[in-house]
Amino acid sequence: MTSLFETHRDLLDKAVAATRSRDYWSAFPEMPSGKIYGETAKADGQAAYESYLGQPFDLAGHPGAGTVGEEVSPYGGALAVGYPAASADSLIAAAKAATAPWAAAGPQAWVGVCLEALKRLNARSFEIANAVMKTTGQGFPMAFQAGGPHAQDRGLEAVAYAWEAMSRTPATASWSKPAGKGTTIAMEKRWRVVPRGIGLVIGCNTFPTWNSYPGLFASLATGNPVIVKPHPSAILPLAVTVRVIREVLAEQGLDPNAVLLAAEAPGGTLAKSFVGNPEIALIDYTGSSTFGAWVRANAGSAAVFSEEAGVNPAVIAGTDNFRGMCANLAFSLALYSGQMCTAPQALYVPRGGIETDDGHKSFDEVAGAIAASIDRLLSDPGRAAAVCGALASEDTVKRIAAAGALGRVVRASGPIEGMDGARTATPLVLATDAASSDAHGEEQFGPIAFVVAVDSAADGLARAITGVRNRGAITAAVYGTDPAFLQAAEDGFAGVGANLSFNLVGDIYVNQSAAFSDYHATGANPAANACFTDLAFVASRFRVAAARRLAA
Amino acid sequence: MTSLFETHRDLLDKAVAATRSRDYWSAFPEMPSGKIYGETAKADGQAAYESYLGQPFDLAGHPGAGTVGEEVSPYGGALAVGYPAASADSLIAAAKAATAPWAAAGPQAWVGVCLEALKRLNARSFEIANAVMKTTGQGFPMAFQAGGPHAQDRGLEAVAYAWEAMSRTPATASWSKPAGKGTTIAMEKRWRVVPRGIGLVIGCNTFPTWNSYPGLFASLATGNPVIVKPHPSAILPLAVTVRVIREVLAEQGLDPNAVLLAAEAPGGTLAKSFVGNPEIALIDYTGSSTFGAWVRANAGSAAVFSEEAGVNPAVIAGTDNFRGMCANLAFSLALYSGQMCTAPQALYVPRGGIETDDGHKSFDEVAGAIAASIDRLLSDPGRAAAVCGALASEDTVKRIAAAGALGRVVRASGPIEGMDGARTATPLVLATDAASSDAHGEEQFGPIAFVVAVDSAADGLARAITGVRNRGAITAAVYGTDPAFLQAAEDGFAGVGANLSFNLVGDIYVNQSAAFSDYHATGANPAANACFTDLAFVASRFRVAAARRLAA
Repeated sequence: MTSLFETHRDLLDKAVAATRSRDYWSAFPEMPSGKIYGETAKADGQAAYESYLGQPFDLAGHPGAGTVGEEVSPYGGALAVGYPAASADSLIAAAKAATAPWAAAGPQAWVGVCLEALKRLNARSFEIANAVMKTTGQGFPMAFQAGGPHAQDRGLEAVAYAWEAMSRTPATASWSKPAGKGTTIAMEKRWRVVPRGIGLVIGCNTFPTWNSYPGLFASLATGNPVIVKPHPSAILPLAVTVRVIREVLAEQGLDPNAVLLAAEAPGGTLAKSFVGNPEIALIDYTGSSTFGAWVRANAGSAAVFSEEAGVNPAVIAGTDNFRGMCANLAFSLALYSGQMCTAPQALYVPRGGIETDDGHKSFDEVAGAIAASIDRLLSDPGRAAAVCGALASEDTVKRIAAAGALGRVVRASGPIEGMDGARTATPLVLATDAASSDAHGEEQFGPIAFVVAVDSAADGLARAITGVRNRGAITAAVYGTDPAFLQAAEDGFAGVGANLSFNLVGDIYVNQSAAFSDYHATGANPAANACFTDLAFVASRFRVAAARRLAA
Repeated sequence: MTSLFETHRDLLDKAVAATRSRDYWSAFPEMPSGKIYGETAKADGQAAYESYLGQPFDLAGHPGAGTVGEEVSPYGGALAVGYPAASADSLIAAAKAATAPWAAAGPQAWVGVCLEALKRLNARSFEIANAVMKTTGQGFPMAFQAGGPHAQDRGLEAVAYAWEAMSRTPATASWSKPAGKGTTIAMEKRWRVVPRGIGLVIGCNTFPTWNSYPGLFASLATGNPVIVKPHPSAILPLAVTVRVIREVLAEQGLDPNAVLLAAEAPGGTLAKSFVGNPEIALIDYTGSSTFGAWVRANAGSAAVFSEEAGVNPAVIAGTDNFRGMCANLAFSLALYSGQMCTAPQALYVPRGGIETDDGHKSFDEVAGAIAASIDRLLSDPGRAAAVCGALASEDTVKRIAAAGALGRVVRASGPIEGMDGARTATPLVLATDAASSDAHGEEQFGPIAFVVAVDSAADGLARAITGVRNRGAITAAVYGTDPAFLQAAEDGFAGVGANLSFNLVGDIYVNQSAAFSDYHATGANPAANACFTDLAFVASRFRVAAARRLAA
């Protein structure tokens, strides 16, 4: 029988090559097209999603008595899906029981299971898209792409790094050392990959699959059982993911409890029950800085990979495509109502304005043109709904209301037409002056942007860099035409580890990071303590043990 | 002008290849031979060492007012070398000032400087051997090999991993994504390696260079300035190392303060002043578990790579070469008076004895034969001095005296003949029974070994594995002939991350680990939280930052 590893070997090799060339490559098509996914895929996916609603979620053999779960869609309505209600102790016990047999399966089995699961997840992209959309509030196109193929690509990327790192050590070597007088000492050496222990993946509300797949697949592909602890508001996409992986494990005669679901209702404390437990060896976390700091401080000897809050800056020094710049920034601010960890929040503009292809633009004209571009983008209700989606959390509604006091309102936030019953808000754009306000420097999660008046482009750059150093950022955007300024920006943002995009116009946005090419986060500022995904993200998830003996 | 990187490129490529094949390879000859190092090298090295004694140690441009240092040789006599007396604040300030220019030099410069420094250190191997011998108490042959070429090989190995990890990301890529209707979105992307920050290397008393070079060169080769904090009793070998690296830096027009020396007298608290300082991003530590636990708990966001205490087991189930086994174990116990982190401490032997090529041997006969082999090995005073050397610390003398009460004395410790004025002790061998004593389970650093009676080989193996899991170990030795038992041992010790040697006889010992082939420690048990050296040891010492723009 062909092993899963052999079946998917070509895919793996291509993925490894892509992480090295970093040219465009994707394993999983991002177009939600019937021609690619099957003519009935869209309807089948929606039906599959709907079949979960109001039902217990079946995970054969999973620990837990009774059900738990209180997901309510940002589009309105409770999902009423009941997930296995399992205590932290019972989940850890099940993961512990699965540890030795999963470790014994070895790297090819780990990688093979992951690749097969990713292929099956890809085939279910419409189903997952519905689950992501209805739990996060993302518009459908984003829920499909980011929640489906893009997340799968990121999972595959983690598997590729894991395979490269693990397979770097040969299984065996003959070692022959000259010992003088024509003699040698000859040894046979063997190495094996030793997983670290149980992995814990703490998911977030906004990108349950995209933010969780790297850690989930990195830990699983290096032989560690994984407990997946979704955000209480976005359980379903990860529950489906866990089920698919468990099915592959069971088919391979492996213990399905190598992947477990830790579901709970809002207000639960499951995550706190796991962190610091000596059985938990690896923690992947995406969420608030407050809880992230607690996780890092209380993880004990577990390795923690965390993505937390940040304030992504844009520095606008000038442009030779004013209209394109404004349209591009408008889209970045509106996309998923600013609920992306990569969306800009603080847009620095010289107090005296900027030079553009359309002549000099004053500070107010720049702020106004960005606001007008948002208006234009959202003028079509269908497009507005698809771009903005809904707000994942009621907290964001309150934050928008409170933020109105933080600056001069250039563009007011409002509901999105035609999305009755959904929790929606278009971007709030505020103008402030760095001379008198620091409001832009604190994360305001959601559709809240500051256009910040600064002395000059250089002043804006300096403030942006300081902000990244102190508060963290995953992305930075710069618009300018002076090569010396652009070089200073490149050096400055590199120094604080914000991944920089220059002068973006058209259909590519600072928010977007492409698997296999763009690294997501750097680990070099407070927004994340690691890059997702690179070699360092996987290299410490396993150890190598040796046995040596004299050659016969 | 040819860059240092280009000059040493071939050496680097060979080192990278060696870490992959893991066959025997060494860049630096381990024989203290005049034919290799020059006919006058031995005398020159001794003279260089002696020239330091009773003098201020010159480090041009190094921070510090006045001198500090109270090294006393285990062979007798004060070194009376005065090192720059610099406060933690002044060292951090100097390292901080060196950070940006060193980061800007880039990977090829970092690696080139490291390779050139290693070559120069190799040329000074006799000088370093004298410094290591006189500060640690090692015999000269070991001080030369472990303190010189082997340490240099380990430094080179770290540089090789660093180069491989850094160069994995291309400097640039053209990214071209199909965007439908025959169009593409094309971007130019650039990446650069961003060092983490200031590295701190905390050295140990017994292997100042061998244990410090991996962290020192791993951090330096990834662009981080490094503060080297030697053990107060073994400063000189690292002071010479720091001077050599600083000379290379200065010749290259770089700030020599990219490498700094934090010297202090015994009882100082410099290490505590650095740990937890937010400027310190990387910490490499070798030493006690007590201080190691403090370092790990107080390091803040710094990455910590630590090697701490352990209890290395040997399980003796049987042998087809009884005399060879006893001689081999005797050497492992006597070598550097048991002061190696890789030396066995707990030797498990079935209570009912073992089968050998020389017939059945009772427990007492096994213990007695190992003791007799030690006697034989040390019967020649010159050999005894070369093998055992002297005791690095007076604490070890006290420990040996107290250990006599922990079991039945099979072989008493005593001074080594002809080493007047030196602090010496031959191995103490104790017999205990696991049914009534746990004394073997706590680290007894120095020449103290327990032959532990157990129910059976399987019982001994189980106890050894549990011991490694709870107390840590870097090595494990197993003697046996039953393939099923050997496989169980291989599986069991792999599970707890102890690197295993089977049935060693002749001139290869469980204590020895060969750079480029054997990994040192695994990170999978309490003896160390990382392997030294592998990809994971270097991969998180730098980050990668990106800049992207639309293609013209």
